[in-house]
Amino acid sequence: MSTQTVEQAMLTLGENARQASRELMRAPGSAKTRALLAMADAIADRRKTLQEANRQDVEAARANALDAAMLDRLTLSERSLDLMIEGLRQVAALPDPVGSLGPTAIRPNGMRVAQMRVPLGVIGIIYESRPNVTIDAAALCLKSGNAAILRGGSEALRSNLALAEVVRDGLRAAGLPEHAVQVVETADRAAVGKLITMTEHIDVIVPRGGKGLISRMAAEARVPLIKHLDGNCHVYIDAAADPEKAHGIAYNAKTYRYGVCGSMETLLVNAAVAVSILPRLAAALLAHGVELRGCERTRELVPQARPATEEDWATEYLGPILAVRVVDTLDEAIAHIARWGSGHTDAIVTEDLGAAQRFQREVDSASVYVNLPTVFADGYEYGLGSEIGISTNRLHARGPVGLEGLTTYKWVLTGDGQLRG
Amino acid sequence: MSTQTVEQAMLTLGENARQASRELMRAPGSAKTRALLAMADAIADRRKTLQEANRQDVEAARANALDAAMLDRLTLSERSLDLMIEGLRQVAALPDPVGSLGPTAIRPNGMRVAQMRVPLGVIGIIYESRPNVTIDAAALCLKSGNAAILRGGSEALRSNLALAEVVRDGLRAAGLPEHAVQVVETADRAAVGKLITMTEHIDVIVPRGGKGLISRMAAEARVPLIKHLDGNCHVYIDAAADPEKAHGIAYNAKTYRYGVCGSMETLLVNAAVAVSILPRLAAALLAHGVELRGCERTRELVPQARPATEEDWATEYLGPILAVRVVDTLDEAIAHIARWGSGHTDAIVTEDLGAAQRFQREVDSASVYVNLPTVFADGYEYGLGSEIGISTNRLHARGPVGLEGLTTYKWVLTGDGQLRG
Repeated sequence: MSTQTVEQAMLTLGENARQASRELMRAPGSAKTRALLAMADAIADRRKTLQEANRQDVEAARANALDAAMLDRLTLSERSLDLMIEGLRQVAALPDPVGSLGPTAIRPNGMRVAQMRVPLGVIGIIYESRPNVTIDAAALCLKSGNAAILRGGSEALRSNLALAEVVRDGLRAAGLPEHAVQVVETADRAAVGKLITMTEHIDVIVPRGGKGLISRMAAEARVPLIKHLDGNCHVYIDAAADPEKAHGIAYNAKTYRYGVCGSMETLLVNAAVAVSILPRLAAALLAHGVELRGCERTRELVPQARPATEEDWATEYLGPILAVRVVDTLDEAIAHIARWGSGHTDAIVTEDLGAAQRFQREVDSASVYVNLPTVFADGYEYGLGSEIGISTNRLHARGPVGLEGLTTYKWVLTGDGQLRG
Repeated sequence: MSTQTVEQAMLTLGENARQASRELMRAPGSAKTRALLAMADAIADRRKTLQEANRQDVEAARANALDAAMLDRLTLSERSLDLMIEGLRQVAALPDPVGSLGPTAIRPNGMRVAQMRVPLGVIGIIYESRPNVTIDAAALCLKSGNAAILRGGSEALRSNLALAEVVRDGLRAAGLPEHAVQVVETADRAAVGKLITMTEHIDVIVPRGGKGLISRMAAEARVPLIKHLDGNCHVYIDAAADPEKAHGIAYNAKTYRYGVCGSMETLLVNAAVAVSILPRLAAALLAHGVELRGCERTRELVPQARPATEEDWATEYLGPILAVRVVDTLDEAIAHIARWGSGHTDAIVTEDLGAAQRFQREVDSASVYVNLPTVFADGYEYGLGSEIGISTNRLHARGPVGLEGLTTYKWVLTGDGQLRG
């Protein structure tokens, strides 16, 4: 297809989505629930068809020599289908955020002022090889009353189109517009270029993928993105830390899973407790296969650590490496995080109420923890039911973004003929 | 100055603002209040100096043949100084939004999850000839813990620099960083270009001014804007409207002030009540000097009305002109607003609960009223204390934007050593 044809196809998707979004905004919660449950049933009924489409994607990917991790993410196993079904049922069971009214104020002239939660409108999701995102994103967008345009990786196109069938059937079964969820059918890159600039039809884009993909998009997008680039997360062990908690939290923050964005990348330790805490913690991390890179004072206590450079303070390893720095004060820890952090998730370990309060007040990150490992950065853990992504934006949604982050509000005012004089 | 010098000067302002914003974030509410009250006192003390600076601006503007309306907006009268002083004292008295915690959820593992309200960071305000915006914007940004960079019209530069002195003195008196509020000192247009693209130092821009200014900015900005372009506001008189309320509301919505963005631009009237309501209402509006442009059915009832074209449905007149259309149903009214409206403020007049609820639910505007004129679109009327502007964005703040719209939140989680397993 020519770029022009692709752009025209995207415009049509956009117009269809806008139209569907107008209908979805006023769809009753019961219809949305029915659609989600019908999708879950359709996946259960059509495992064979879905896996056959996926097998073709996986074979093509293997022929293109995709690496093992990518192949793993691409594959629709029985278990990943089970998780999709379970996910759909969970989202169906969440409370409908749309139409709820906040507190009502009565103004001196008697008029009533409140905010009503409403859908954002049309959401574009751009993601890489995981086909399960197709279902997760469709479910969250639908539940929050938004139309969705989904653009997955080209290597997962057959799987995504098969899943789109399931979604369409669910929508139809509930009497909802078929264009409420659309999958981009072309692998052409021009499709993304159009999607992220089509401000008249798309209200927000949620990109999910590597930092390279997202920063390219951020540079070119005209549609607002809900996104994060880096998760350079810190744990600071304060002078007043409980040594056992500090050990457990720091170890868990690094080793729970190296690849998640909430994984700790730099450990800051107050000099007053470094001698008692660092050697044992370092030994445990080294035994687990974690490479340590430390400042000079760290290396006096942990000779196995390699010297850290400034680049280490700036790096999100997403792997078995940890930067370690000894600091003298809480202020120094807060300053290090302000200078090198990415505003994602940072934690303090302390029994000192004042230090805990100062850290939570002064560290300017989307999530700030006391006595918890940074790996709790996840919408489900926060009680949001599910998440579409994690945001380090300052406007709109921040941190894990659940259904509420996919909505906005409008002001509803009710009077009895009051006039402005 | 060369463009490069201007850009370098803007970068320095940006860096200073970011630094000041870090300090402001943790400033106690009492210091911010002290600064605002000191600014009010300083204006009272320095009326002569301020009016002398303003006199030079006004003379230059007169020499440049600025029109009377612009000259009026530019002039700092005794009354406008009084209003600034009063405004500062009112903002000082508002509750500090920063640091407040929302409801705390306790998760099954015992960790506590809450949201803390925090400043956005650095806010850029770009405005035209009114020097009072310098004080209003400085006050709202400071109260909400944000650093501000203010860029007023070149015709008001001397006035704005004199007001900036007052602001600096207030900040100093309260021990707050002087760079918390900075005024751009160059009239060079390259300054705006840099301001709206300096994403590393500016978190949000609030443009205040004409549609031309704002749409140019929206096309070039990389920093998010809190803005609205049009206020093409509608009043729909439903079949179940109380005729007296309908008359009062429609008349007030048009004639309260032609130039405000909440002014009614199109009146929609249900055919069932058009005969009983339109002729009398039209006579009152015509008597007030309002030109009417109507659909055919309107013109049968109001022969003085000129024929309306599609362009009339699309136009925000901001003047003594009103478009009028007779519709057969609530659905037709809602569809007209969806097609032609600008998502700003729209109202229904009805005694029918079902019609009121459907209108408020289905009209997708920032503010949707029942039995109130659209001219209530104002932060003060909503109980926000004051407003920095009105937003028709879908993300972040919508409708009148007060102190809360200048803040964001962070997640604060507190545990006791819980781990993720």
